[in-house]
Amino acid sequence: MDKARVESFSDGVFAFAITLLVFGVQVPTLTNPGDCELRIALLHSAGGLVPYLTSFATIGIIWLNHHELFQGVQKVDHFALTLNLALLLVVAFIPYPTAILGKYGPLPSAACLYGLILTLLGIIYSLLALHLVRNCLDPIPDAGSYWRSSMWRNAAGPLVYLLATLLALRWPKVSVSCYFLTAAFYFLPSRSLFDGPPTSETRGHHL
Amino acid sequence: MDKARVESFSDGVFAFAITLLVFGVQVPTLTNPGDCELRIALLHSAGGLVPYLTSFATIGIIWLNHHELFQGVQKVDHFALTLNLALLLVVAFIPYPTAILGKYGPLPSAACLYGLILTLLGIIYSLLALHLVRNCLDPIPDAGSYWRSSMWRNAAGPLVYLLATLLALRWPKVSVSCYFLTAAFYFLPSRSLFDGPPTSETRGHHL
Amino acid sequence: MDKARVESFSDGVFAFAITLLVFGVQVPTLTNPGDCELRIALLHSAGGLVPYLTSFATIGIIWLNHHELFQGVQKVDHFALTLNLALLLVVAFIPYPTAILGKYGPLPSAACLYGLILTLLGIIYSLLALHLVRNCLDPIPDAGSYWRSSMWRNAAGPLVYLLATLLALRWPKVSVSCYFLTAAFYFLPSRSLFDGPPTSETRGHHL
Amino acid sequence: MDKARVESFSDGVFAFAITLLVFGVQVPTLTNPGDCELRIALLHSAGGLVPYLTSFATIGIIWLNHHELFQGVQKVDHFALTLNLALLLVVAFIPYPTAILGKYGPLPSAACLYGLILTLLGIIYSLLALHLVRNCLDPIPDAGSYWRSSMWRNAAGPLVYLLATLLALRWPKVSVSCYFLTAAFYFLPSRSLFDGPPTSETRGHHL
Repeated sequence: MDKARVESFSDGVFAFAITLLVFGVQVPTLTNPGDCELRIALLHSAGGLVPYLTSFATIGIIWLNHHELFQGVQKVDHFALTLNLALLLVVAFIPYPTAILGKYGPLPSAACLYGLILTLLGIIYSLLALHLVRNCLDPIPDAGSYWRSSMWRNAAGPLVYLLATLLALRWPKVSVSCYFLTAAFYFLPSRSLFDGPPTSETRGHHL
Repeated sequence: MDKARVESFSDGVFAFAITLLVFGVQVPTLTNPGDCELRIALLHSAGGLVPYLTSFATIGIIWLNHHELFQGVQKVDHFALTLNLALLLVVAFIPYPTAILGKYGPLPSAACLYGLILTLLGIIYSLLALHLVRNCLDPIPDAGSYWRSSMWRNAAGPLVYLLATLLALRWPKVSVSCYFLTAAFYFLPSRSLFDGPPTSETRGHHL
Repeated sequence: MDKARVESFSDGVFAFAITLLVFGVQVPTLTNPGDCELRIALLHSAGGLVPYLTSFATIGIIWLNHHELFQGVQKVDHFALTLNLALLLVVAFIPYPTAILGKYGPLPSAACLYGLILTLLGIIYSLLALHLVRNCLDPIPDAGSYWRSSMWRNAAGPLVYLLATLLALRWPKVSVSCYFLTAAFYFLPSRSLFDGPPTSETRGHHL
Repeated sequence: MDKARVESFSDGVFAFAITLLVFGVQVPTLTNPGDCELRIALLHSAGGLVPYLTSFATIGIIWLNHHELFQGVQKVDHFALTLNLALLLVVAFIPYPTAILGKYGPLPSAACLYGLILTLLGIIYSLLALHLVRNCLDPIPDAGSYWRSSMWRNAAGPLVYLLATLLALRWPKVSVSCYFLTAAFYFLPSRSLFDGPPTSETRGHHL
């Protein structure tokens, strides 16, 4: 399987899923449409912006990482294809929990569902990254030691999301803030949790 | 007609259709929104995940096969273009029966409609594959014998779907399981029903 | 402006508009969901398939023609860019009249609106084709005589749609059949209304 | 980060957002569907076309400018990536205020929200343009003087939108006309507010 096709198909799904998020922000339906009612309804639906921004940033970060990861890849085997399709499955599904969280924001179930999907996203991305680093990259001299260290680094993203998901059972608003801050944090050009394979130039913002 | 354009346009439709599937999973509308009501509604709509996963896997497999098929193609004639547009028509239509099946899962009509669309998809893909193998591939020494054997192999996919569709008239849940298992089965890196033209390297997961 | 970018952006809009058409086919909402009710509702919504198929074929044909037209183009000037954006505007708008026609099929207003949009599409495409043929193609020896003949050929498509639109005021069902048959007719690999510029190899199926 | 990937991902988001605008034009729901009722409902929803056309033209112009800007870019740094994702965030969000303005056209809140989003779009685009011109373009002899003059030119677009937004508080219809005329004005092949970096050939229609 040609690497370029996998990338362009993945890019399509990333770009499409990120654009579909806007349907999670509800267009209010007013019984008697007046300016005052509309202003109140718009301010009320402004709460839906937090999950919108969080999901946008999360898909944006995954897209950045996905490309960085594939830059060093030489060939894509069947297991990598399957993991990549599983990643796209979760990415394409994100508009659903985003819409739920935008509509029923402060409820624990909505925050839990959202966190579970982000945790799943992090796990599948970590598996894909580990598989590609171990099997599909250019031959790397110190791949063994790198793999051992990157496994721990990769696990940090899903772990943070899992903890935030558990928090959601009691404090859903704290949990939603965690999702948002984690995504915002990864946008900073800081030292990253997952420093990338030794062969490629290291850059920031990883999940 | 340039082969690259047909591929990129097809890729676009595949990627969009696979991402639009998420609208088939209903965002529940609660009359009095409480955490308990939301949890029940989310668990209830979890049944909509089975058609979502099935359709995602089916479009993913058709996309993989489509690319493999076009790798050996030299030129695309008018009949291939028409068959390809018919294939895209069915692929772009899949979100509709998926949404029906997600909303009215256990009813025979929903399962039948879904199965009919998958059967149609299999038939059109088989026709496209046969036409391209016979007319548009690199000159192949033993194309005649290959064509005779691949015709039988290609017919297996649509036949399985047709049988599952007939099953749906009486046992819709069994039928939905068949659709899901067929898609899951084709994801295994096993020996495929359609081994691909002799000129190209043979790989797994075909419809 | 680079021709390749205009093509890829146009391809994106074509592929996306063709995939969004599926939302014009209504997912029925049943008050008491039973298999009999669902079967009746699905058969009832089958009428929405005719506009879906017509719009799919029309966008498919416009896409084929658009690419053929751009194959001979060397540079894209500002007026061509503006006409191309106007064409994309109409293409991206097609899901709206398609949804109206699918929901309120036999009513004259719905058939008229649909016909007006197709007429507008034909006019803008003809203007774009004429402009590109006259200004942006490779130097052609007999461009003058070609332009005079192609102007008449290009005008045929919009004229047929305009007549069908007028028919819709009294016989909307006849009009809808005309739209469908016109799209189906252009899919045949026959001699085309617009034979394409002399510099490029002539192929079939034009609007 | 490879410039080509940023461009193709941005193109995808631009093309999707421009096509999703059609959902802002409401498919009318009639209680007793008759031709007269449908005609009245369609004429009523024609008011939704003005925001549709305005948003289409605005995204089209931003797309044209985005490409022109990136043509001279050699490398994309982290801050440019972040600004570009912020631009895409606002572009992908445009279908929401467009739908609000299409549904509740003459109300000040709807016109204000729409204007605020366009102002934000203009500000982020100007920041991206300034950053790229100063940091990521080919070495330019007179970049310093260019930067000082282009800063004023770039500020004009957001300022016009900000003034129209303030107008919306009292005269929303005048404000909506301003948005529409500004977008229409930029489509003319006139001298532009932002003439582009000295290294690249100057062309028209900028925000």
